[in-house]
Amino acid sequence: MTGVRKQPIFLGVDGGGSKCHAVVATASDRILGSGTAGPANAFYNYEQATRSIVEATRLALSDAGLPQQKLGELTAGIGLAGVNLPGIFDKVQAWAHPFASLTLGTDLEIACLGAHAGGDGAVVIAGTGSSAFARVNGRKTIIGASGFPLGDVGGGAWLGLQALQYVFLAKDDLVPPSLLTDFVQDTLGECGNTIVENMAAAATWEYARLAPLVFEAADRQDVAATRILKTGAEHLSTLIRRICESSPPRVSMIGGLAERIRPWLNANVVELLSPAIESPAAGGLYLAQQGHEFRHQQALENV
Amino acid sequence: MTGVRKQPIFLGVDGGGSKCHAVVATASDRILGSGTAGPANAFYNYEQATRSIVEATRLALSDAGLPQQKLGELTAGIGLAGVNLPGIFDKVQAWAHPFASLTLGTDLEIACLGAHAGGDGAVVIAGTGSSAFARVNGRKTIIGASGFPLGDVGGGAWLGLQALQYVFLAKDDLVPPSLLTDFVQDTLGECGNTIVENMAAAATWEYARLAPLVFEAADRQDVAATRILKTGAEHLSTLIRRICESSPPRVSMIGGLAERIRPWLNANVVELLSPAIESPAAGGLYLAQQGHEFRHQQALENV
Repeated sequence: MTGVRKQPIFLGVDGGGSKCHAVVATASDRILGSGTAGPANAFYNYEQATRSIVEATRLALSDAGLPQQKLGELTAGIGLAGVNLPGIFDKVQAWAHPFASLTLGTDLEIACLGAHAGGDGAVVIAGTGSSAFARVNGRKTIIGASGFPLGDVGGGAWLGLQALQYVFLAKDDLVPPSLLTDFVQDTLGECGNTIVENMAAAATWEYARLAPLVFEAADRQDVAATRILKTGAEHLSTLIRRICESSPPRVSMIGGLAERIRPWLNANVVELLSPAIESPAAGGLYLAQQGHEFRHQQALENV
Repeated sequence: MTGVRKQPIFLGVDGGGSKCHAVVATASDRILGSGTAGPANAFYNYEQATRSIVEATRLALSDAGLPQQKLGELTAGIGLAGVNLPGIFDKVQAWAHPFASLTLGTDLEIACLGAHAGGDGAVVIAGTGSSAFARVNGRKTIIGASGFPLGDVGGGAWLGLQALQYVFLAKDDLVPPSLLTDFVQDTLGECGNTIVENMAAAATWEYARLAPLVFEAADRQDVAATRILKTGAEHLSTLIRRICESSPPRVSMIGGLAERIRPWLNANVVELLSPAIESPAAGGLYLAQQGHEFRHQQALENV
């Protein structure tokens, strides 16, 4: 070894079904800038995902006051929804990316790294979907993550679909009318063929955007909405209990619905939760650093 | 009016998500021949649907020993899944079809006409989806028909999805293992990422093909499968009771699951059912005749 290694700039990216967040930081974890671009789910749309990643990164470089040419010097850690599927992982690995290096992980992995500032722990996700992930002493555990509609009970898409199913049963007088019915129709228009036509090829987020209506109706004591939320929250409580069996030092619940659904969880389960320390995108920085150290270690061993 | 009207040849077509059936018959309802072609769901694939209709018709003409040139002389009555949606109805109506005339209806309408030999009555469908339809004194009632996954409780796709959801919960030890789990994995392969990848963009029939496994597991007292079937059958029993409120002279249950799910229905509901007299494709013949008479009546009025 001769000379001093140049201090790398790290890039952390959190790519999800609706948005892509990027942060750039120095090795000392000082975040220099951040940027947000469009959807980055490599499973549904690989081209769009890679485009969003680069776009969010360019915005983060601008935000940091760094020149765009730095793109090629970035040590990237990217967490993406969908790369738990081997076919998708290989596809993204084969991407001719514009960075100096890329360490790839799942969205769950970087969320967990971020929530526990790079340390061991677990996360339960209550967002568009629902799932749980733990990383303890190098051992990873995943519960759920089978996607909507196979899994994801208690997630936003699941809540939205339950709401719509109720609305259509109510339309045929098969269940009693409900506040929820009014709320959904205020949002989507009169219940009927138009909704059927629009939702037939609906993406997950289109169901998920109905989830806030379920909370709103339940807040006003609507019976149907309350039953849906109780079923969803019961599943999330089970996820929390089950992921705790891997003995993580900390457990956080994150995702777009985490705050709203918290009061619906079993009280003894809520006690198990600690706040997330950093964001999933910041978790990408830890992934990037781990990948960097791993490669550096390998290089030393090969000298 | 001069001369004698040429006796038309009628064409009845039943277009569904997996197959398209066509029958040709004389005005006296004597069926001359029949043919079957591929899927004809105008909602999911308009091009394929119109192609399947023509193909099934050509096969029916051959089967009847009639020349293919007769295509242009046929008085057609076509029932299609999806045309309950106004946008789809208009699209098929605008089709430059090769027949002498075309009367268009829903799949429910021709199923009902067929089941009651052109007379008033009601049908409850237990096929890939679930729905009910009645035609009494010119008044039509529809229950359900909002499609999967918004509705269709108790239909094949719904049963298949319930089975898969159970399998994925079982994989994470969130529900007890079950015969159903084994059956589904024997069919789709080891439960995991491959299934998720394959089912993510799955068509309705891909879920529906798992429905027989639910019956098979329930026949062997599997608790999970029994619970799923009871929920589905309960919904179908409700559909039957509700469609009876429109006072149809006869009610039939039809569709690919009708026979298998019958023992699961409430006993007092089963008593309400009569066998279907003719097929949905034959129902298309009645629709064609009604359209023909209607146009003839209008022509007379305009003389």
